[in-house]
Amino acid sequence: MSITPYEVSDDIDYQKIMKSFGAQKINNNIIKKIDNPLVGDYFYAHRDLDKIISYHDKHKEFAVVSGRGVSNQMHLGHLLLYKFNKFLQDKFNAKIFVPFSEDEKYLVKDLEFSCLKDLAFSNALDIAALGFDSKKTEFMFDTVNMKQPVFNLSVKASKLLTFNMINSAFGFNKSTNVGILHYPSLQIAHILHPTESTGLPVLVPIGIDQDVFVKLSRDVAGKQKLTKPASILSRFMMGLSGEKKMSASDPNTSIYLNDSPQKVKKKIMSAFTGGRGSAAEQKEKGGNPDICSVFEYLSLFFLSDKEKKDLESDCRNGNILCGDCKKCLLNKVNKFLENHQKNRSKAEKKLDKFMEPVF
Amino acid sequence: MSITPYEVSDDIDYQKIMKSFGAQKINNNIIKKIDNPLVGDYFYAHRDLDKIISYHDKHKEFAVVSGRGVSNQMHLGHLLLYKFNKFLQDKFNAKIFVPFSEDEKYLVKDLEFSCLKDLAFSNALDIAALGFDSKKTEFMFDTVNMKQPVFNLSVKASKLLTFNMINSAFGFNKSTNVGILHYPSLQIAHILHPTESTGLPVLVPIGIDQDVFVKLSRDVAGKQKLTKPASILSRFMMGLSGEKKMSASDPNTSIYLNDSPQKVKKKIMSAFTGGRGSAAEQKEKGGNPDICSVFEYLSLFFLSDKEKKDLESDCRNGNILCGDCKKCLLNKVNKFLENHQKNRSKAEKKLDKFMEPVF
Repeated sequence: MSITPYEVSDDIDYQKIMKSFGAQKINNNIIKKIDNPLVGDYFYAHRDLDKIISYHDKHKEFAVVSGRGVSNQMHLGHLLLYKFNKFLQDKFNAKIFVPFSEDEKYLVKDLEFSCLKDLAFSNALDIAALGFDSKKTEFMFDTVNMKQPVFNLSVKASKLLTFNMINSAFGFNKSTNVGILHYPSLQIAHILHPTESTGLPVLVPIGIDQDVFVKLSRDVAGKQKLTKPASILSRFMMGLSGEKKMSASDPNTSIYLNDSPQKVKKKIMSAFTGGRGSAAEQKEKGGNPDICSVFEYLSLFFLSDKEKKDLESDCRNGNILCGDCKKCLLNKVNKFLENHQKNRSKAEKKLDKFMEPVF
Repeated sequence: MSITPYEVSDDIDYQKIMKSFGAQKINNNIIKKIDNPLVGDYFYAHRDLDKIISYHDKHKEFAVVSGRGVSNQMHLGHLLLYKFNKFLQDKFNAKIFVPFSEDEKYLVKDLEFSCLKDLAFSNALDIAALGFDSKKTEFMFDTVNMKQPVFNLSVKASKLLTFNMINSAFGFNKSTNVGILHYPSLQIAHILHPTESTGLPVLVPIGIDQDVFVKLSRDVAGKQKLTKPASILSRFMMGLSGEKKMSASDPNTSIYLNDSPQKVKKKIMSAFTGGRGSAAEQKEKGGNPDICSVFEYLSLFFLSDKEKKDLESDCRNGNILCGDCKKCLLNKVNKFLENHQKNRSKAEKKLDKFMEPVF
């Protein structure tokens, strides 16, 4: 089983990964305290999240660093992370920092510099559309306005990392370009920047496959005598064809934020479900929500904990058919996307404000 | 024989290095055209310098990139390069870019970040004291005001360099920190910045031991479809104890710009010369200016071509004794340093202007 930011093998065992990474399961105390349907299910593991909560109890704030890997238009799966960040801002007064990695993507993909910049700004609009408070939210684009403290921190971090360390963390080799070898220094700098500049502790909500960046950041923080960043680690989101991790190469397994209602309909109507061969059989034996992509989308995006439990039970008992769930999801998604596109247009005027430093 | 920016072996054969690096000897046409006593002797090899001269014939300008490796106070040997740059600005209307490498030194030495910044500004004052035109001269400090186009160029360069390439060019290994592995990308970006931003061709006056940076820059320029930077390559300056290359670790082999007149006297009076065992023997057999550090200092800093030839002949013929030369050098150096310190104080007010972009 191999999980790195650049490779994820098929046989994912989340409990095994959590243990091998040295992360902890999110316990009921934390689940109650945060009180968000994503925590406990989608976000399942953490490091030092309890310390962030304790800090918040006293100081009523903390920082969140939540980078966006710019490589395509955003889909619903990408947006989930930022919906959660918005929740953290609203409920916990979190300052949100979003570094866009157009530079990293340039290094690993065969894409033009200027295209990646455009893509970064396009992604930024989707994130801004969620309604973040621009006074407490900062978008960082290394190739547009590299922040001096971030660059300087990256120099310090790069002194503490050797080729061997990077190689063992990411599985690179000697033919890897030096930009990729060096990029973790910048990502570490993004993560440590709020703590180094203001002392605020940082929480990084991040996919389990990206956890190595947080681990390296914690090592560097220790050596720089900074508070180590905490993390809250998510599992992957199921793709519409039922695979455990959405495929970046197959656009049909994800719903993009700029998909037309017709395209969304086509994708959802042909989505993989946990249903039986016939309606009669399903009514008799019930469906399986555990493997159902429609249930995954409904529960992650649109249902409260109670609604989720009710739907799960209706499915298992054969009280609801896959067609019903698909129609329900279709309506909700298209309504959400219509609203999102409106908010996105409004956000265009505000984008500059998100580029002003929070401190 | 090993010549890299981080290691220079003792057995230096300049013609052999030039050939193995693929550089060319500076010919009489170029010597006449530039007409500076340093060219032909101290600066002995080049790449594409003829192209720079042709460009200047048509356009009456070019750019010079001449980095300063910040690691200590500057000595006369360091200043020689910038005296030559000042000459290029005065005679050829060259725009001069001076990137200070406080970030590189942080990566390779056990020095504090803040000390290196202070040292960089101190070095900058010594360079500014030479009287550069601030409208045509720009000082670049990566850790103080990283320029966005330079950073972006460094990302592009870093995509074109692998660990293997850097390793074979510099002799690093897998325990080298990733900052050092990545630094050549930034140095390449400094060198290519004027050409990428304005199309001006770049000349890099540089010590032969640093030539690899120019070679890598030329490779990257080729791949980025930019005019390849030219170089004019210097030999090392002799140290006061007669070694071919001044020792960075022994301050007595160099005259620092902040040395007191007493210290300068002590250093020059005990300098290694090409003299004989006694005055009588020297008058009879003559001295050897080829191995004389006092002759080196006089000829590189203070003598015209004619004066140099006259002194050389007087020495070989026994018409002048080492004590005379030492007194002559001592007077000239102390007068120069007194004047330099005055100019340096005046430059303090102007330093900000040198940090404004030339374009």
